[in-house]
Amino acid sequence: VSDPRAIGVFDSGVGGLTVARAILDLLPREPMIYVGDSARFPYGPKPVEEIRRYAIDIADYLVHRDVKMLVVACNSVEVSGLGDIAARAGIPVVGVIDPGTRTAVHATRNGVIGLIGTEATVTSGAYDRAVAATGASVTLHSQACPVFVEHVERGDTTSDALRSAAREYLVPLIERGIDTLILGCTHYPLLSGLLQLELGPDVVLVSSAEETAKDVYATLLRSGLERREPDAPAHEFLSTGEPELFQHLAEVFLGPELLEVRAAQALPVGGGSWN
Amino acid sequence: VSDPRAIGVFDSGVGGLTVARAILDLLPREPMIYVGDSARFPYGPKPVEEIRRYAIDIADYLVHRDVKMLVVACNSVEVSGLGDIAARAGIPVVGVIDPGTRTAVHATRNGVIGLIGTEATVTSGAYDRAVAATGASVTLHSQACPVFVEHVERGDTTSDALRSAAREYLVPLIERGIDTLILGCTHYPLLSGLLQLELGPDVVLVSSAEETAKDVYATLLRSGLERREPDAPAHEFLSTGEPELFQHLAEVFLGPELLEVRAAQALPVGGGSWN
Repeated sequence: VSDPRAIGVFDSGVGGLTVARAILDLLPREPMIYVGDSARFPYGPKPVEEIRRYAIDIADYLVHRDVKMLVVACNSVEVSGLGDIAARAGIPVVGVIDPGTRTAVHATRNGVIGLIGTEATVTSGAYDRAVAATGASVTLHSQACPVFVEHVERGDTTSDALRSAAREYLVPLIERGIDTLILGCTHYPLLSGLLQLELGPDVVLVSSAEETAKDVYATLLRSGLERREPDAPAHEFLSTGEPELFQHLAEVFLGPELLEVRAAQALPVGGGSWN
Repeated sequence: VSDPRAIGVFDSGVGGLTVARAILDLLPREPMIYVGDSARFPYGPKPVEEIRRYAIDIADYLVHRDVKMLVVACNSVEVSGLGDIAARAGIPVVGVIDPGTRTAVHATRNGVIGLIGTEATVTSGAYDRAVAATGASVTLHSQACPVFVEHVERGDTTSDALRSAAREYLVPLIERGIDTLILGCTHYPLLSGLLQLELGPDVVLVSSAEETAKDVYATLLRSGLERREPDAPAHEFLSTGEPELFQHLAEVFLGPELLEVRAAQALPVGGGSWN
C-alpha cells in the first residue's frame, strides 16, 4: 500500500521552511504542500482569536487539497489552539511544541531546561504547559529573543550586534544552570552555531524543527500513510504574500540551489593530480 | 574586516553535502567550494595509504584555490590521517569525528554512548580514540551499518528492508543501555526519523554533520575569518565523477530546489477565505 497524498505544512511565513526541509530530508519520497501566510506575517502580535481564524482558513484549504497529514510549523499558530484545527481536519496533526519539549525532557541531565522563542511564544506559557504535561520533574526557564528573527531573515548569523544580543538573552539562562536549550522558534536552527558558541559545549541544543520532522516520520509510519513509489515527488510552496519576497527568503531557509555541477577533471589542478 | 575567500569542503562523494548544507545554514554569507570525489567513491574499502593520497590531492587543489578553511566532510578520509592534511594546508582544518564525539560526551547521562558508521569507520577505532582523548569516563559501543548508505542514496528511508536492518543493528546497542548515539557517517542524518523511532525517545541522537557545522562556525569566528558582505555568496560544487549522477544524488542531500512560488490568492480555496 502506498498513499500518494501530500503532507500539508503551514506557517505564518517562511520560518516553517526549516521544518519543511527537515521533513523532506527524512521522507524524501513524500510530496508536500507548504503554505506561508506571509501577507499576514508576523502572527505574534495579533490577538489569539484572529490567529486561530487564519489557521483554520489555511487548514481548511489544505484539507480541501486532500493532504494526508497537517503540520503546524509555527509556534504562534499552535499556541492559538491546535486542538480546534485537529478536530476540524480529521487527519493526523503534528505541531512544533510537543516534539521539542519531549526530547528536551529526555535529554536533560540536571533537570534544568531553557527555552528561547518569540515574545508571543514565551508569554503564552505553552511550553510550560507542555513540560508540565510530560509529568517529568524538570524546571523550565524561558527567554524571549525578539531580535533573532529579523537577523536570520537578513541572512545575518555572525554580526557583533547579533552576538551581543545573544549574550544578553543567554546569560540569565546560563546563570540558572540550564544544560539543555529548546530552540522554540522555527528560525532559530539557523542560529545553532552562534548559540552553541555562546553557551559552551555542555548545553545540548534541541531544535524543534528537527524534532517535529522526526514526529512526522513516526506518525506517518505508525498510521501506514507513507508513499512508496521511488520516483521524485512534486512539491508546492505557496505564499499569501509577495511571491518574490517569499522566494528570496526561502532561499535563506531552504539553502542555495545546486545550480550546476562541473566536472573537476577539466579544471586546473594545483600541486596534486586527480587520477 | 571581511574575508571573502571560500570555505573548502571535501568528501569521497555526496554524503558530505549534509555537512556542506549545515555549514551554509549557519553561515549563509560564506562562499563554499565543495569537491566530491565520486569517481573514486567509496573510499571505505581502499587501503589507508591510497585514501591519504587522494585526500592530499584534493586538499592541495582547494588550497591552490585559496580557501580560508578546509572541512574534511568524510569519516573515511579523516580516519586516514587528518594531521597530514592540516600540516600541508597551513589553514584551519575541521573534521567530522571530534565535533560529534565532544557533543556526545557532554550529552550522555549514563556514560554509555553508541556509534554507528560504515565498516571502515568502525573498524578504524577512530571514535574510540577520540572518546579516549576527551578524558571523560564514558563507554563507547560501536556498530557498523553497511546497508544504510545504499538505501539513503536510493532515497529510501522507510522501507521494510531498511527498517529490519536498522533493528538488527540497533538492538545490540539498546541492550547495552546507550542513552546517546553518534551518527558517525554523513549519510545518516537523513535516517534520524527512522533511528529515533527504533531507539525510542530516551536516546539522544548526535549528528556529526550538524556538530561539524557548529565547529566550523566557532573556528571561523574565533579566527576572525568571516565574510561580512550581505550579498549572496557564490558556491561551487565539483565532482570528479559523472556530473549528472552527482547532481541527481545531490538533490537527495541538498533537498529539492524551490522551483516556483505561486501566489496563493489566485488558487481555489476550500471552506475558508484567505483575506
